[in-house]
Amino acid sequence: MANPLSEIRIVLVHTSHPGNIGAVARAMKNMCLAELVLVSPRGFPSAEATARASGADDLLERARVLSSLSDALEGCRFVVGASARIRSVEWPLLDPRACAVRCLQAAATGPVALVFGRENSGLTNSELDLCDALVHIPSNPDYQSLNLAMAVQVLSYELLVASGLGVVESPRREVAPHEQFEGLIEHLSETLDDIGFADPRQSRKLMRRLRRLLSRAQPDEREIRILRGVLRVVQGRKFRQPGSNDPHL
Amino acid sequence: MANPLSEIRIVLVHTSHPGNIGAVARAMKNMCLAELVLVSPRGFPSAEATARASGADDLLERARVLSSLSDALEGCRFVVGASARIRSVEWPLLDPRACAVRCLQAAATGPVALVFGRENSGLTNSELDLCDALVHIPSNPDYQSLNLAMAVQVLSYELLVASGLGVVESPRREVAPHEQFEGLIEHLSETLDDIGFADPRQSRKLMRRLRRLLSRAQPDEREIRILRGVLRVVQGRKFRQPGSNDPHL
Repeated sequence: MANPLSEIRIVLVHTSHPGNIGAVARAMKNMCLAELVLVSPRGFPSAEATARASGADDLLERARVLSSLSDALEGCRFVVGASARIRSVEWPLLDPRACAVRCLQAAATGPVALVFGRENSGLTNSELDLCDALVHIPSNPDYQSLNLAMAVQVLSYELLVASGLGVVESPRREVAPHEQFEGLIEHLSETLDDIGFADPRQSRKLMRRLRRLLSRAQPDEREIRILRGVLRVVQGRKFRQPGSNDPHL
Repeated sequence: MANPLSEIRIVLVHTSHPGNIGAVARAMKNMCLAELVLVSPRGFPSAEATARASGADDLLERARVLSSLSDALEGCRFVVGASARIRSVEWPLLDPRACAVRCLQAAATGPVALVFGRENSGLTNSELDLCDALVHIPSNPDYQSLNLAMAVQVLSYELLVASGLGVVESPRREVAPHEQFEGLIEHLSETLDDIGFADPRQSRKLMRRLRRLLSRAQPDEREIRILRGVLRVVQGRKFRQPGSNDPHL
């Protein structure tokens, strides 16, 4: 299967605010999700939803609007309900990361649904009965007020990461090889001697400290060339210091 | 340190829409972050910010408003800039999870800043120069349109998870001990014999299949009592089946 995320269905149940539906579509599309199902939304389609979707209106156009959650779950191999509170009951409870892993495992065999309830009251117990597991987004125990679209954003983000499609690759830096780094250290040591900076009794300690600092910075070849260029200029300047007439001293 | 999240500072630079500032405050508070710094926001304070903050207006009231990013970073031990695009340049690039780990490590030594730029153009290069690293939220290569508050939500969520304060604990289920599970299997086998369900040539295979199914369900003691209660009723009813006069047959 090319893209397991194409099997993930976001189901919104009895959403009250059309703006939230638009914001959900935007959150989904950013995270490579495409299938939105709306169960008895209030006021959809609406201009507000389209405005908030901000370029993800193709998801709104393709969204199916149904009147029952059961119909929305047709064909699904795994159904997870989003729960704002941790219930004391029998549903297996997942955190968003575990949820993403489970959803993608199941998505290898067929459609998977993530179900989100009403803005103010979530899913009813009989809607939760249709779910195989619940997912709870961790949050501040003193302030649990995660907006619907924010919840979709966090769970969709975890799905994108778990899918492996969301790898953030740092531009590769080639750290300079050992001997070039040693060349820099030696050059620096010479230069400090040349300018008379180091107290000879302290110089071993000082050089160790500077070595550690530069080592943490992990310079690449180009940076070492720049630093050695600076050192060469410093070494050159020494001979032209005021008070010195001999250019070789 | 009690709560490393208290060292995390969210810095918004030149935010245009006051509603976004409110939504950021809400996202932060949900994830246990409290310190918001605004660099030259357009239109703040504003009623729209307070409305979108939805109960997180204490963060807005305590937000510092400054005119330079440098001032906003005072005291910080580690500064990360949020970047919507992956730059080809010299900044170390982190994904949100690595960013959270690095921020919390640094937060053990002092304040840490996460910096977010303008809604439409992000951070300038000279603002990025003040950052130790960049963080990029993975997203759809064909649609990168993450709202400012959504970006704060995802990074704050990762911080809460990395802090260990966001553990979602499933209510603990005690799976029944082995011998009780075996008792159920034996009882089920007897009952199937009693009702004449199993073809004797198939019964070993059938029982293995049912055993596997029940084993996957990992029943607890109470569930085993319920299932055996059902089996007892089935065994009892057999004797009252129509056409049987002998209650013991």
